[in-house]
Amino acid sequence: MRIGLDMMGGDFAPLEAVKGVKLFLDTVATNAHLVLIGDEQALLPLLAEAQLDQSKYSIVHSSQVIGMDEHPTKALKEKQQSSIAIGFYLLQHKKIDAFISAGNTGAMMVGAIYSIKPIDGIQRPTISTPVPRQNGTFGTLLDVGINADCKPENLAQFAVLGSLYAKCILGIDNPKVGLLNIGEEEGKGNLLAQATFPLLKENKHINFIGNIEGRDVFREKADVIVCEGFTGNIVLKLAESMYDIAKERNINDEYLDRFDFESYGGTPVLGVSEPVIIGHGISKGIAFKNMINLAVKMIESKLLDKIKESFTSKEN
Amino acid sequence: MRIGLDMMGGDFAPLEAVKGVKLFLDTVATNAHLVLIGDEQALLPLLAEAQLDQSKYSIVHSSQVIGMDEHPTKALKEKQQSSIAIGFYLLQHKKIDAFISAGNTGAMMVGAIYSIKPIDGIQRPTISTPVPRQNGTFGTLLDVGINADCKPENLAQFAVLGSLYAKCILGIDNPKVGLLNIGEEEGKGNLLAQATFPLLKENKHINFIGNIEGRDVFREKADVIVCEGFTGNIVLKLAESMYDIAKERNINDEYLDRFDFESYGGTPVLGVSEPVIIGHGISKGIAFKNMINLAVKMIESKLLDKIKESFTSKEN
Repeated sequence: MRIGLDMMGGDFAPLEAVKGVKLFLDTVATNAHLVLIGDEQALLPLLAEAQLDQSKYSIVHSSQVIGMDEHPTKALKEKQQSSIAIGFYLLQHKKIDAFISAGNTGAMMVGAIYSIKPIDGIQRPTISTPVPRQNGTFGTLLDVGINADCKPENLAQFAVLGSLYAKCILGIDNPKVGLLNIGEEEGKGNLLAQATFPLLKENKHINFIGNIEGRDVFREKADVIVCEGFTGNIVLKLAESMYDIAKERNINDEYLDRFDFESYGGTPVLGVSEPVIIGHGISKGIAFKNMINLAVKMIESKLLDKIKESFTSKEN
Repeated sequence: MRIGLDMMGGDFAPLEAVKGVKLFLDTVATNAHLVLIGDEQALLPLLAEAQLDQSKYSIVHSSQVIGMDEHPTKALKEKQQSSIAIGFYLLQHKKIDAFISAGNTGAMMVGAIYSIKPIDGIQRPTISTPVPRQNGTFGTLLDVGINADCKPENLAQFAVLGSLYAKCILGIDNPKVGLLNIGEEEGKGNLLAQATFPLLKENKHINFIGNIEGRDVFREKADVIVCEGFTGNIVLKLAESMYDIAKERNINDEYLDRFDFESYGGTPVLGVSEPVIIGHGISKGIAFKNMINLAVKMIESKLLDKIKESFTSKEN
């Protein structure tokens, strides 16, 4: 398998990207070949210094970079030689099997949705976040921000995508799906939640356990937590701030340390037809390593084939 | 001033209600007279044991109780001799100046909205939560659950109500109002947030500072945080669970201890024409004391007159 990595994306590129590559190659036994996309002149000395196994990677030169604040659609169109544009080109033409970048998030979304395209039957691709639980496991919460306004059908699709993700990547058999809501009983909630509940209840592809409340997010009550991207994004950023506050207050707790969402690396764009992973701008080496790992898992588990299968069956 | 207190409401009534009365009378220098509504036979021995100044309270006997799980509208209609029904009767007929209960929340809402009624010009009464900040102060977040679906105009009214509350009760001059959203710039967010932003921006009664994100909720960025009740309720319950998790993990931190939202007592129903305060079902003595205190502050600061004034002026 060939994994494409944008070496120029993120606030600390390319140094932290190189560190991530080294961490990955040093610690993970893998037959993955890394395709490092970036400015050759900047990369070569860093890679030489890192003393990597040269059979494990190759470099694809890119002469442009899309800045973090550039207009996504415009930049992607005009900067054909940027690392992000080249990454999507390679992915689209099957030269790589996954593409990872911590660069301009908007450009990554535009590339994922318009050059890679959603899987047939999927209305809205989605992004998720890992949800750390006290028992050491992770759940997943989705959508966390790209779908601020949703229809019930969108949430029902997120539930299926999240379930497959939980099975393939988080290793949870028969993951429990909860609808994030403001009451436990059926019939509670805003109009969207009320209309979504019956769709989840009758969906045979998921293990729906009903509504869950804000207090249940970090419990083991549900493995897949479904909501629209407005609420999901606020929950994610609130949780991130709890980590920051804990650090400021010198609280050292094994569990709260797992609220360092930035270390997880990034989120796949679920629902598009090839593996695309978008990282935080401030990704450090460990985050890059985790994203490469995630790409490997997505490929090895055949997550995308399973999603395609599920959405070509009639019931979704 | 005469403050009505439902002694039969809450999971630990009437004992914890009596404890709250004692705490209040023992620690607060006040000319408030407490009107204790409840079963005289149950109250008399507890009050005698508490050794209270008898000039500070009187008892109004109620022979019925509305259970925590009863249907609000039905129970309120059928149980005219319940402590909640009597409380609203007394408030409606100006025999008391505020009414507090930790009983059936639905019945309290129904009573507040249908027997006390919204202030002229207010479309939707709202409930809020205190937001503890690291600098020792509190902000306020509203709505936290009774308005799951909102129009932009509702949010604009919450902003005005929250600002007056922050001034009168939290003692913040010129409170900063933030719109809870998923991006900082104008134009970001879901359709509701996008449509609400200009209404807040042009409202001369508030000090609007723009959008704030999930990560800013527990910072000092905004004093009044406005959102619909779906998101607000999830934020509140998530924050409550952070307190529970900290306790389970034996984390003792002065700031996280202030996430014990139950100790604050309850929330006023902002926007109805008399002071009504709804407490948590599990309220203990300290919560009852805090609710009595809040009622005193609402009356002394003339919060409701200021709300009425603001909403009879043309611009809201």
